[in-house]
Amino acid sequence: MTDKQVRIERDFLGSIEIDDRSYYGIQTLRAVENFPITGYSIHPELIRALGMIKKASALANRKTGRLENGIAAAICIASDEVIEGQLTSQFIVDPIQGGAGTSINMNANEVIANRALELLGHQKGRYSIISPNTHINMSQSTNDVFPTAIHLAVLRLLDGVIEELEGLVGAFSSKAMEFDDVIKIGRTHLQDAVPIRLGQEFGAYANVLRRDLNRIRRTREPLLFVNLGATAVGTGLNADPDYVRLSIKHLAEISGYPLETVDHLVDGTQNTDGYTEVSAALKICMVNISKISNDLRLMASGPRAGLNELNLPPRQPGSSIMPGKVNPVIPEVMNQIAFQVIGNDHTITLASEAGQMELNVMEPVLVFNLLQSLSIMKNGFHVFKNYCIEGITPNEDRMRENVNQSIGLITAINPHIGYEQSAEIAREALVTGKPIREICLDRNILDAVVLEQVLDPFQMTGAKS
Amino acid sequence: MTDKQVRIERDFLGSIEIDDRSYYGIQTLRAVENFPITGYSIHPELIRALGMIKKASALANRKTGRLENGIAAAICIASDEVIEGQLTSQFIVDPIQGGAGTSINMNANEVIANRALELLGHQKGRYSIISPNTHINMSQSTNDVFPTAIHLAVLRLLDGVIEELEGLVGAFSSKAMEFDDVIKIGRTHLQDAVPIRLGQEFGAYANVLRRDLNRIRRTREPLLFVNLGATAVGTGLNADPDYVRLSIKHLAEISGYPLETVDHLVDGTQNTDGYTEVSAALKICMVNISKISNDLRLMASGPRAGLNELNLPPRQPGSSIMPGKVNPVIPEVMNQIAFQVIGNDHTITLASEAGQMELNVMEPVLVFNLLQSLSIMKNGFHVFKNYCIEGITPNEDRMRENVNQSIGLITAINPHIGYEQSAEIAREALVTGKPIREICLDRNILDAVVLEQVLDPFQMTGAKS
Amino acid sequence: MTDKQVRIERDFLGSIEIDDRSYYGIQTLRAVENFPITGYSIHPELIRALGMIKKASALANRKTGRLENGIAAAICIASDEVIEGQLTSQFIVDPIQGGAGTSINMNANEVIANRALELLGHQKGRYSIISPNTHINMSQSTNDVFPTAIHLAVLRLLDGVIEELEGLVGAFSSKAMEFDDVIKIGRTHLQDAVPIRLGQEFGAYANVLRRDLNRIRRTREPLLFVNLGATAVGTGLNADPDYVRLSIKHLAEISGYPLETVDHLVDGTQNTDGYTEVSAALKICMVNISKISNDLRLMASGPRAGLNELNLPPRQPGSSIMPGKVNPVIPEVMNQIAFQVIGNDHTITLASEAGQMELNVMEPVLVFNLLQSLSIMKNGFHVFKNYCIEGITPNEDRMRENVNQSIGLITAINPHIGYEQSAEIAREALVTGKPIREICLDRNILDAVVLEQVLDPFQMTGAKS
Amino acid sequence: MTDKQVRIERDFLGSIEIDDRSYYGIQTLRAVENFPITGYSIHPELIRALGMIKKASALANRKTGRLENGIAAAICIASDEVIEGQLTSQFIVDPIQGGAGTSINMNANEVIANRALELLGHQKGRYSIISPNTHINMSQSTNDVFPTAIHLAVLRLLDGVIEELEGLVGAFSSKAMEFDDVIKIGRTHLQDAVPIRLGQEFGAYANVLRRDLNRIRRTREPLLFVNLGATAVGTGLNADPDYVRLSIKHLAEISGYPLETVDHLVDGTQNTDGYTEVSAALKICMVNISKISNDLRLMASGPRAGLNELNLPPRQPGSSIMPGKVNPVIPEVMNQIAFQVIGNDHTITLASEAGQMELNVMEPVLVFNLLQSLSIMKNGFHVFKNYCIEGITPNEDRMRENVNQSIGLITAINPHIGYEQSAEIAREALVTGKPIREICLDRNILDAVVLEQVLDPFQMTGAKS
Repeated sequence: MTDKQVRIERDFLGSIEIDDRSYYGIQTLRAVENFPITGYSIHPELIRALGMIKKASALANRKTGRLENGIAAAICIASDEVIEGQLTSQFIVDPIQGGAGTSINMNANEVIANRALELLGHQKGRYSIISPNTHINMSQSTNDVFPTAIHLAVLRLLDGVIEELEGLVGAFSSKAMEFDDVIKIGRTHLQDAVPIRLGQEFGAYANVLRRDLNRIRRTREPLLFVNLGATAVGTGLNADPDYVRLSIKHLAEISGYPLETVDHLVDGTQNTDGYTEVSAALKICMVNISKISNDLRLMASGPRAGLNELNLPPRQPGSSIMPGKVNPVIPEVMNQIAFQVIGNDHTITLASEAGQMELNVMEPVLVFNLLQSLSIMKNGFHVFKNYCIEGITPNEDRMRENVNQSIGLITAINPHIGYEQSAEIAREALVTGKPIREICLDRNILDAVVLEQVLDPFQMTGAKS
Repeated sequence: MTDKQVRIERDFLGSIEIDDRSYYGIQTLRAVENFPITGYSIHPELIRALGMIKKASALANRKTGRLENGIAAAICIASDEVIEGQLTSQFIVDPIQGGAGTSINMNANEVIANRALELLGHQKGRYSIISPNTHINMSQSTNDVFPTAIHLAVLRLLDGVIEELEGLVGAFSSKAMEFDDVIKIGRTHLQDAVPIRLGQEFGAYANVLRRDLNRIRRTREPLLFVNLGATAVGTGLNADPDYVRLSIKHLAEISGYPLETVDHLVDGTQNTDGYTEVSAALKICMVNISKISNDLRLMASGPRAGLNELNLPPRQPGSSIMPGKVNPVIPEVMNQIAFQVIGNDHTITLASEAGQMELNVMEPVLVFNLLQSLSIMKNGFHVFKNYCIEGITPNEDRMRENVNQSIGLITAINPHIGYEQSAEIAREALVTGKPIREICLDRNILDAVVLEQVLDPFQMTGAKS
Repeated sequence: MTDKQVRIERDFLGSIEIDDRSYYGIQTLRAVENFPITGYSIHPELIRALGMIKKASALANRKTGRLENGIAAAICIASDEVIEGQLTSQFIVDPIQGGAGTSINMNANEVIANRALELLGHQKGRYSIISPNTHINMSQSTNDVFPTAIHLAVLRLLDGVIEELEGLVGAFSSKAMEFDDVIKIGRTHLQDAVPIRLGQEFGAYANVLRRDLNRIRRTREPLLFVNLGATAVGTGLNADPDYVRLSIKHLAEISGYPLETVDHLVDGTQNTDGYTEVSAALKICMVNISKISNDLRLMASGPRAGLNELNLPPRQPGSSIMPGKVNPVIPEVMNQIAFQVIGNDHTITLASEAGQMELNVMEPVLVFNLLQSLSIMKNGFHVFKNYCIEGITPNEDRMRENVNQSIGLITAINPHIGYEQSAEIAREALVTGKPIREICLDRNILDAVVLEQVLDPFQMTGAKS
Repeated sequence: MTDKQVRIERDFLGSIEIDDRSYYGIQTLRAVENFPITGYSIHPELIRALGMIKKASALANRKTGRLENGIAAAICIASDEVIEGQLTSQFIVDPIQGGAGTSINMNANEVIANRALELLGHQKGRYSIISPNTHINMSQSTNDVFPTAIHLAVLRLLDGVIEELEGLVGAFSSKAMEFDDVIKIGRTHLQDAVPIRLGQEFGAYANVLRRDLNRIRRTREPLLFVNLGATAVGTGLNADPDYVRLSIKHLAEISGYPLETVDHLVDGTQNTDGYTEVSAALKICMVNISKISNDLRLMASGPRAGLNELNLPPRQPGSSIMPGKVNPVIPEVMNQIAFQVIGNDHTITLASEAGQMELNVMEPVLVFNLLQSLSIMKNGFHVFKNYCIEGITPNEDRMRENVNQSIGLITAINPHIGYEQSAEIAREALVTGKPIREICLDRNILDAVVLEQVLDPFQMTGAKS
């Protein structure tokens, strides 16, 4: 095309021709060539976080006198545009990339450099005026910028997860109160056990998820400590001590998170246990969510040939061939999110273990999986609460009938006549189909009035919540 | 907006207003509302496969007389457009979805129904004429359509993986020949062992990957057997026996794969071991690729303070702060692909285990991960071969020097003087820094000529390949 | 103690005092001190395999003239005692050990050396006459002995797994025939779907396990190729070419397996994909077993408030508190074996990936997990077949009743009146509780005779097997 | 044998003949027949914990008046013998068992019942006097006894892990101080980066492990809350409220742990997230330990053809064939422990997810893996500290030489002349082999005195610790 403007950019490996409308530069394009792996985009929260760091660094570098005012100002404006998402289309490197995040950092450096050049009336590519490395990346290394950006992105998404999980816990708690009088048969080994109240079950769901909420919340705090200022290996080489202090201060203001410098910068640069800790908490939570989803699907099984104890809100026709069928699609998607998060935790564990000496070069795949886990949990919790939990209704008649037929009621007789004789009655009930109550009366096990009390299923379920 | 055309669609759960430019319908939109999970698109190969199945079914239904010629023809044209990718933007459901793939199947059914209606001059949404369920999904259930589509998509991507892996094996084999004379020290436990030839090492890489190639190839064949015709639970309810035969025949023609009906349709509908088998083969391959990548990164370590035995082609500046640094970014991305594939295998395993009775409703997350694994391996192998393996060069001087200094040479003396005395010489060499050869001569261990022969490192490496 | 006989043994790191009744020596004791990790014993099949290799090597070394006849004969006798298990108590190193198996190899070398010395009338520890390294380990390295031993141990256990799995497949097949007339409701999403025969379900179980059997069988063949003769790094240093040929020949005779030398000894020494391949096949099998176990537990749920379709043989009182309760303990233990095998596969994958250069030093933990997986599967399959599958009986009345109540029957009406109208009838059935048949008759959907035929559940399940 | 005494025991499934020397009874033997899976023994800490619970329960039942004094006293003595390990040989059920721990609970109940009978002068098996179910298991269910026992066993082992990890952190901290002056080249991507001090690296190891220590410590507290008193499904059926209070009080006294009742007994009975939380913390720790072990093995590589920066204490001859070879066997075993713990975490995750309704019947395999992880970590940390870390010495000359040759020194010049010009110098150094210092002087980059300061590697590593 004759009308296409191009510019030539160079690095120590050679030169490359670039469409001059592009803000990214040669290193971004090298990365695009080198890593055509997933075809996915970098997570927007990560791009946003990079914008914040570049701005905070520019402000700090200006104060230490190493960055000229005019350039600093242009970098700040360009960074703001990154933060606000106006330059997102210019972030074109793949989330799975070699180089420990250098390519995504350089993508940010190049985009901001060229936008800053443009803002100051220069042509893109005039890196002798504003250089991606010398100016945008001043006092920084990918090895401190990238982890700091990950911390920020994880914090943001984590707060979203926490908020949605709070809602979900609330929904289960409300249902626990609503269902507190609904008696049903408890099940162990999928076999009829002794009576329980549906409210107790939903209370247990709320309780375990409340623990998850606390576990997840606890992983937030370590993330507030970042290694900005560590530069290449944690020794802070080329970063002014004032810069370290100032850049964190500015980043805290820009991001709204009370960030601080990690206590040991070498450790903070080479280790990724803060992320595996988040992922582990997410995994444990999804294990619990998966168990709850399985319970719901089981209790909603039927309608005729299943347990049919619960009605889940119908969300969509369930079958392309079986008319009228409605499936528990929301719990099903929660199970799948659980499987994804558990698998992602595995990838994260592998990546974390593969760190070597001063750096973990596997961070890109680690963060790709971690941000995905956070995003799909946040989205899933919202759906689970609004499209499933809040609309659940019990089939009380069915549940009551199950309790009355149950052989497990014999357990309450146990303390009165011993385990061995109780077992005999239980087997008789099973073989003859007679209710426990009737056999006990026939055998004169207990006075009728006492028996009535002993076999009252509500009494068996203990104190009301 | 006054100029926006909308239509109303209904199902047994209610009605919904749809932008009339859209080919998808009410069930697609219900799914979009229910499953806003990953934000990713359905893999294009899966969409393509659905188009093929819908076309093959229409042809079969026409032949059994259940589908009118005109409608069948319109469905075929619309399906062709799906196959060619012209309607891809209309596939808007999320890859992680509840309902065992019903939503993606209905997305296809609705898009094809509306496009077929349009082709016949009708308005979209006139489902009394062409219905997504009654016509497009005729003789089908999601429970046979979706697995069949997965098979096709996996086959296509698998063939891509196989082709790229063949190239990679070829590249390693070429290097094995090229490096057959390059002597170096072998390492066990990362400790100096006995001499080996670089060509032997690259030959070993080629060999293990050749086994992987065969392992992956072997997983192809079971995928050629599909459950189309099984309908809801594998009993073929509502599918004409002729349909079963004809639909497979047409699908084979359309797809170019010699498909056949599985031998047991109930089994073929409920089990997903064919996919876990593919994923396991991919995982094993990536375990090997990761080991090889680690070796390459180790041998290329340095340049000054590392092993510095190999030069990998420089692909991009390695650091935003350290000038001139070049990192082994391609092996690094291979490690990360390995971690992703291993984690994906985990998710696939979990999903596969969660099948219940006649169906595995976790297939969407399973196939999302499987298609991703296949895609990133295919892409990664291409990069690995072209940007890394083919350009590797050895630092022969460095390697030779390492051999000559090595204490491991003592092993060859072992048969002549026994393990215990050899160990003494080895410790002397370690402590004094003297070469093995010199100590042997000092101690008169062997005649000088014999010693020269015994200590010839090339001799120690065995027959040339 | 004055009466305790001790001997002093030395290596290049120092000396150690040993109870002279012990056949193991200084290196075994160093390993015991260094690796007090699991407290478990080395798997007896691995010890047996080491005995076979030492015998085969001695025979080969005698033939090449490097080992004196008398010593060779004594080594053979001592090795036979190892093979027969008479010296098992002398194998005291921990299965999880550093050193890539050197300690278990040296444990074998020392036990056989001392026993051979004893057989020839010498004192234990007289290694100048028979040395663990120079004589027992002649022409060998841990790096070829240990992998070869693993191959043999895995082969033996694999054959046991295959035999038990064949029995299990047979049991499922028998039940498939026995239950071929038993009609029940099929379930997808745990929701009532359309009729199926219990025999079809058990046939599907038999079918998927038959595939597992084939998958597992296929992993046998690569194990028949071993790297004995590779010595330290695969170059065969210190091993006579005749030795390589002869030692394999003898080992094949002793073990009864048609062993051959691997085609590429360097590859065969550094890579462990043959084990990950076995483990992957085991994992896939256990995923299927776990799914089947879940189905059985679900169908056996109740007896009153569950599906109650199947009776599993009662094996033990199920509860310490609930009299008469019987739980599905055998399927439960199968699920747990599955979880163990899947977790073991993970450890095996990690260990396999951690190979470096010429060796994988993580083999001990790999083989510990692999042999455990094989053993518990073998044991579990036996129990599953004999204590569960063979004794299963169906509750045919309950199943028939479920079919007759089912709304899914409407699917068969679908082709006659279209999906949309069928859906209406389904919803009416659900709300009113009326049978599908009745509503169809009320609405005059089909002629009564035709309706009877269309709604015949046996017809809906397709051809008899 | 004529002199063998046997007794007959009965349950509702039949009767069985038992060697009368055995304290275990019919249910133990049924379990032995049903679950011949791993061949391993139940972990001694779990047996001990069961003894404590049985004693605490007997004391509580005596106080509520439900258990007669004499019987209670006999149970306490028998339980003490279990706690002290005198009856360990009588615990013969397999750790992987169906039935959610009923078999191990009944094994304890039977052993204590028969020993108590014996103590009171009765024959074993006289369960009408003291019954395993009615008396030993009084007010209990497996569903509260087993989780409570797991908590106690985990707490004990966890305290052992914590103690050993404290020692390990101490050892790394000491080495950090010892090595604080040792300059070396930092490495990122295994490529030479910029100088760092060995003390900083060991300080980073201490720091990350200190975080692990805190993470592991945090998992202790939830374990102090147990569900004793929950009985079958968490409703406390058959347990006197006073019993709940008293039994915990006694158990706290006996065990020495400040135990309390969980806040929600239904939740406490059905969920296992407390264990997955422990396992996750263990896993994260072992990921870090594995990374550190990899670093140590890398730095100790050589001695001639590797990095050769560190000397690990030699622990055993490293090779059966290569004389004088010493391998890093202790870090190698730590890697393997890591792989085992990560795999175990996977099994634990699978088991935890498989809970259904009121109970997780997969607890036996879960606890088998969890107790194993704890044990091998405790053992491994001891070995790692004593046999490896404490004896590490640096090769300072080698490290200094590596720094002086390094091209990464150019990074310090960067702020003075910009990234682009620095990159040129770096490439010149690489190609020509000239030191950075010399090129800078040749090019008159900086005044010689300033240059000396800028290139001082100690200055580059930042503040002393």
